[in-house]
Amino acid sequence: MASEHIYKQYDADLQSIRAKVLEMGTIVEEQLSEAVQSLVDADTKLAEKVIRRDEEVNDLEIDIDEDCSLLIGKRSPVAADLRNVLMMIKIIGDLERIGDESTKIANATIRIIENDIMSKPQFKNINSMLSSVQLMLRQALNSFARLDTTETIEVLEKDKEVDEEYRSHMRQLLTYMLEDPRTISMSLELMFVTKSLERIGDHAKNITQSVIYTVKGTDVRHSSIKEIKAELKH
Amino acid sequence: MASEHIYKQYDADLQSIRAKVLEMGTIVEEQLSEAVQSLVDADTKLAEKVIRRDEEVNDLEIDIDEDCSLLIGKRSPVAADLRNVLMMIKIIGDLERIGDESTKIANATIRIIENDIMSKPQFKNINSMLSSVQLMLRQALNSFARLDTTETIEVLEKDKEVDEEYRSHMRQLLTYMLEDPRTISMSLELMFVTKSLERIGDHAKNITQSVIYTVKGTDVRHSSIKEIKAELKH
Repeated sequence: MASEHIYKQYDADLQSIRAKVLEMGTIVEEQLSEAVQSLVDADTKLAEKVIRRDEEVNDLEIDIDEDCSLLIGKRSPVAADLRNVLMMIKIIGDLERIGDESTKIANATIRIIENDIMSKPQFKNINSMLSSVQLMLRQALNSFARLDTTETIEVLEKDKEVDEEYRSHMRQLLTYMLEDPRTISMSLELMFVTKSLERIGDHAKNITQSVIYTVKGTDVRHSSIKEIKAELKH
Repeated sequence: MASEHIYKQYDADLQSIRAKVLEMGTIVEEQLSEAVQSLVDADTKLAEKVIRRDEEVNDLEIDIDEDCSLLIGKRSPVAADLRNVLMMIKIIGDLERIGDESTKIANATIRIIENDIMSKPQFKNINSMLSSVQLMLRQALNSFARLDTTETIEVLEKDKEVDEEYRSHMRQLLTYMLEDPRTISMSLELMFVTKSLERIGDHAKNITQSVIYTVKGTDVRHSSIKEIKAELKH
């Protein structure tokens, strides 16, 4: 009975940390969509909101990190339970970086408006990349919420598409610059925004890999999609 | 006597992991200097070597990560001992990313040679940024090796300088592009190399902050240098 009691306490502690991670995920999802929104609408106020919220995300990371250390120190989890906690520490690191990249996009919005270099025709690619990356992040967080690997392969496959979109968009921006040097400053800003979106996709992929590790116990960070598919069948 | 025996075992396990982390650090330091060397010398072979070694770094990360999980699961460290292990997990994450950024620089070398867009006069800034970032990384790894915070403030202050160098170098590259659109492709490559160097500086800073956390038990990731100096006096 005593051990059942301890297990229940452990479980309650774990659920409370998981809830905080998901809360952090939700804020970061909002940061991402609002950062791109601020760019497309040339909305300084919205950009500033994204930048302000980054502090909230940073505080949550420190808070959850401490919760995880305390939980390990107090309850000495082993095997799958320990994996679960260690993976949350990794996941919040990725979420914090997604917040950082969104903040960089918001900073680009502010610079673009201040330097009066806005030109809109290039936003189509940004919006299409945003949709892909948003979907990846949502699916990654769904997998985490349910500790279910069903959607993970989709995230990993989508990441390859995003990398392709990234390269094609960068080539197109380079072409604009070469054809019309007046677009250089704006195109450069959009290149760095594109780069941030690509990195956010990478972090969503990392979260997915952490979920696979938690559920399956296998580290798939440097495995091919084919190898991971085989692993998930076990 | 039994607990002393257990403690000695724990200590031996910990030392063996620490040695691996330092080995990973040494490889990553070499990757960084060889990546920039490959660019400056237009040396495809050296660039390919940097890219090949990234696999070694990735394998080491997975290996050390597993060692850390096993150590926690087997010995249930608490307080400072636990912090020590959790921080190594974070540090190898940063080292792995430094390896990634060095690999990106090596890939830039290969693209620059293949596309025949090499122009050398802009290397002075890259070399100066490399020196700063190398010093940061060396000092961060020294602090980790000795669990000593003496050099940490220097690393954090150097990071501010590197950020300033980064901005000034980016402005200069933009000026080149605007003045002579024929330099656009090369300048763009150098912008991304500059960005990689700036990120490597960030990772060296992260490692330093992890060392401070291990030694002092305080999370200083989002603290100002002034706050950290006060903390280190305690």
